[in-house]
Amino acid sequence: MAVIRKKTGNFLEDFRVGEVLRHKGGKTVTEGLFNTFTEFNMTTNPLSKNREYARLYGYDDIVCPPGLVMLVVFSQTVEDISENARANLEYINMRFGAPVYPGDTLEAETTILGVTRSSRTPELGVVHVASLGRKQTGEVVIAFERKVQVWMGDMNAKVDDRVLETKPVVECAPWIPAYDPSRNYKAKAHLSNRDTYFEDFHPGDTYEHSRGRLITDEHIALTAQLDNTSQVHCNQHMIDMNPEKYIGGRLIIFGGIPFNLCLGVSCPDIADNALADVIYTTGRHVAPLFSGDTVFAETDIRECRDYPGREDLGLLVVTLRGHKFRHPKEGDPTAVKVDIFVLEREIAVKRRSHYA
Amino acid sequence: MAVIRKKTGNFLEDFRVGEVLRHKGGKTVTEGLFNTFTEFNMTTNPLSKNREYARLYGYDDIVCPPGLVMLVVFSQTVEDISENARANLEYINMRFGAPVYPGDTLEAETTILGVTRSSRTPELGVVHVASLGRKQTGEVVIAFERKVQVWMGDMNAKVDDRVLETKPVVECAPWIPAYDPSRNYKAKAHLSNRDTYFEDFHPGDTYEHSRGRLITDEHIALTAQLDNTSQVHCNQHMIDMNPEKYIGGRLIIFGGIPFNLCLGVSCPDIADNALADVIYTTGRHVAPLFSGDTVFAETDIRECRDYPGREDLGLLVVTLRGHKFRHPKEGDPTAVKVDIFVLEREIAVKRRSHYA
Amino acid sequence: MAVIRKKTGNFLEDFRVGEVLRHKGGKTVTEGLFNTFTEFNMTTNPLSKNREYARLYGYDDIVCPPGLVMLVVFSQTVEDISENARANLEYINMRFGAPVYPGDTLEAETTILGVTRSSRTPELGVVHVASLGRKQTGEVVIAFERKVQVWMGDMNAKVDDRVLETKPVVECAPWIPAYDPSRNYKAKAHLSNRDTYFEDFHPGDTYEHSRGRLITDEHIALTAQLDNTSQVHCNQHMIDMNPEKYIGGRLIIFGGIPFNLCLGVSCPDIADNALADVIYTTGRHVAPLFSGDTVFAETDIRECRDYPGREDLGLLVVTLRGHKFRHPKEGDPTAVKVDIFVLEREIAVKRRSHYA
Repeated sequence: MAVIRKKTGNFLEDFRVGEVLRHKGGKTVTEGLFNTFTEFNMTTNPLSKNREYARLYGYDDIVCPPGLVMLVVFSQTVEDISENARANLEYINMRFGAPVYPGDTLEAETTILGVTRSSRTPELGVVHVASLGRKQTGEVVIAFERKVQVWMGDMNAKVDDRVLETKPVVECAPWIPAYDPSRNYKAKAHLSNRDTYFEDFHPGDTYEHSRGRLITDEHIALTAQLDNTSQVHCNQHMIDMNPEKYIGGRLIIFGGIPFNLCLGVSCPDIADNALADVIYTTGRHVAPLFSGDTVFAETDIRECRDYPGREDLGLLVVTLRGHKFRHPKEGDPTAVKVDIFVLEREIAVKRRSHYA
Repeated sequence: MAVIRKKTGNFLEDFRVGEVLRHKGGKTVTEGLFNTFTEFNMTTNPLSKNREYARLYGYDDIVCPPGLVMLVVFSQTVEDISENARANLEYINMRFGAPVYPGDTLEAETTILGVTRSSRTPELGVVHVASLGRKQTGEVVIAFERKVQVWMGDMNAKVDDRVLETKPVVECAPWIPAYDPSRNYKAKAHLSNRDTYFEDFHPGDTYEHSRGRLITDEHIALTAQLDNTSQVHCNQHMIDMNPEKYIGGRLIIFGGIPFNLCLGVSCPDIADNALADVIYTTGRHVAPLFSGDTVFAETDIRECRDYPGREDLGLLVVTLRGHKFRHPKEGDPTAVKVDIFVLEREIAVKRRSHYA
Repeated sequence: MAVIRKKTGNFLEDFRVGEVLRHKGGKTVTEGLFNTFTEFNMTTNPLSKNREYARLYGYDDIVCPPGLVMLVVFSQTVEDISENARANLEYINMRFGAPVYPGDTLEAETTILGVTRSSRTPELGVVHVASLGRKQTGEVVIAFERKVQVWMGDMNAKVDDRVLETKPVVECAPWIPAYDPSRNYKAKAHLSNRDTYFEDFHPGDTYEHSRGRLITDEHIALTAQLDNTSQVHCNQHMIDMNPEKYIGGRLIIFGGIPFNLCLGVSCPDIADNALADVIYTTGRHVAPLFSGDTVFAETDIRECRDYPGREDLGLLVVTLRGHKFRHPKEGDPTAVKVDIFVLEREIAVKRRSHYA
């Protein structure tokens, strides 16, 4: 007879450099999950909305937007990698591969690339990992590294404090349907914006995306739908018993939610005529988000490059920045802009010359 | 190098009488979208709930309720027609056509029928449009006119102030499966109410529908799922910075939400044994709705007509009226009834003689 | 000309012992409904998440968790059985049968087993019923009894106060795919927890499940999605006009919601490697739940038995207990534990010897 209260997740001392963790669960992307997140994202790219349009381009079905692929795979890694984390420090080299359609099943695994205990705050350390997601065909759909600040569980435990000498090589590049002059792309060109082809972008321009979106306590159900069970997003009693321990003394919104919303809010200006997100070289959450905040975003156009091997496409290199506003006091018409998220992003965008 | 903040939507001076606008996006009705709205609507007609029942009647699958078809098509027209509107004045001759099933993809287009600048308030005018939605087969699923009060963008711009001489003719009548005496409808008759066949209705009767439904800030996610990105429904920061500019100083609920909820709340009394909504001759929102309001509805039976060419059906002509209550002060048991919505509605209802 | 306000549901005097009520509606489990509840439940069993895993085990598709089957069938019985109830007293012998997959359509019927008017409070009585749900193949998916305390409608009406002599016999046992040594179960064993096989459980142990979940006013939409239209869950105006009449003076959360959430919160410790819930011999709601409560659960292991005819499985007999906390006053760090739900539960659990 015993009372059992299981610990979930790993502490700093539990990580073994070089180990590969195959995560639990896996997840079939039902039409319900697809609908919830594609719509929450506010994406406007018809590839994720209109099956006829997606098929005209050579996809099998409507396409999961990159943010949804990221959320489903990332969330599967949470219990093993970041359930006992203090902070998610950085996304690195997040690359997209095979398209994901409703009905596909995604599974995830993670290699531990390095562990570094902090000399200044020895109760913490940084875990550097490489994760990937595969669909049922075995194809990689996403691969990314991230750095997480993780708590020690037992201050006297031995930490595997080192860096993997050779990172595993994961092939992951977006599958983009071939340009086919016999397809009548122009017949559906009115379904996307007219001014978001590759020719429309100029390095140095900044787009202030016009739409904002309030996030309510809906974030709790959204996070649960992703199987991200981290208690700081949904356990109000835990917060109430010890509010000073938790950032803001409130349930905090899972970072994947604003990550996605920023992608969506920028979509009508930036990615309405994209065929794929290629890579997010780096990304970070800069400030926390809570129920009641309204999310906005801006995009800086940094480079406009040729897309190797594809005359019909260009590669748009941008910085996506999310922000919210803090209202100093009620009735005060001023508001302070607070940065919440930044993402370096490269996108494969259609050329008007070929598609419209 | 430029800072770009795109204007979305058209102002009064942007509309050209006679022009046909093909709207962006299109939308595949996934099972996720179907579930969200069919259940929010509170419809009780088994055609929208029970695949076996719908197939017994000759439909291919469970059927999208008329309110969902309306929401999906209407919302696609918002950016081009009413993003810069002050008010949606009237729905006119909304007719339903081919049935819409989960998996169908709907696209929309709108013809500008007339533009009238106001002489009394020259910063405003009325745009009169005819919209229609088609599914991937090319069949029309809905056609309707509406009148919208739209802001001028540039007070000095020239307005195309005239009326189209000849309205385009759009064939749109509901597809209703033929009555087939060899089908055993009676075997499933217990799945719908026993007292809502055509023989049960009498002109002059008023039904006070017994159920009410609180609308919470769930309305934000519902509206986003429809791709209706009008900022007055979801941009809390915009409201907070200038509350006096906005009705009620709060996020306002998209009119399509109470439109649907009134249809649903009336369903068990009025449309549980309907095979189709035929036409909404006119409809208007009479008062705004906010998070925290509970929606109720009533229906007046105006006429009971034969349905041309169908002995198994009757045409029920009704007025659907939605309302909420205003509570003068907390603790005060009185409450003031406030009308919110009115819709003139004609429905094809089964006769008991043939189906039960 | 008349004003009609229909009564819905039956009062104590309306029940006829021995009568069989076939309920209205029926319900196709769309992928939208499946997603909403499987994710709200927080189940972690991969059978309900990962189509490839479910097929490896011999299921046709991802499997609806037992709580979803219960919710869909139970809710269909509400209007006829408990719309005019004061309280749902007890669930009895709830047994599960054929697996339910997305796309299946469930219909429900109920036999009245007994009616007992209260001698002490003659405005109330207890109705004892046996309900069952079938899918479109005719197979029974769930069968259960329940006892409900129902109001009299007319105090002078005659009550059919008696007990059915012979209960109808309903065959209902879980369909569990045969163990097939040629299947490579081990290849997917990493997708479920390693320490929740039958060999891991010991009578007398108590599991304090580590996760809690706040329920917000999302419960209104969840309840509506189940077609449970009981007004105490969604009609805020009704409550506001007469708060003293209703428990807590607030919208109360439908008991099926915490029933499901307790199953889900216990899943990673108890049912992650279950192939079926066999029977809930008895269950009761002990205290009401409101928006803002955080739900927790515990499980007592009572017995570990062989599963008849199946060497690969064991039968786990447990008590599942749900609770919340009441915070005496703001800022007070103490909190009082309040029991909300108890369920006696028998589960068919895989043996490590065969599957991992």
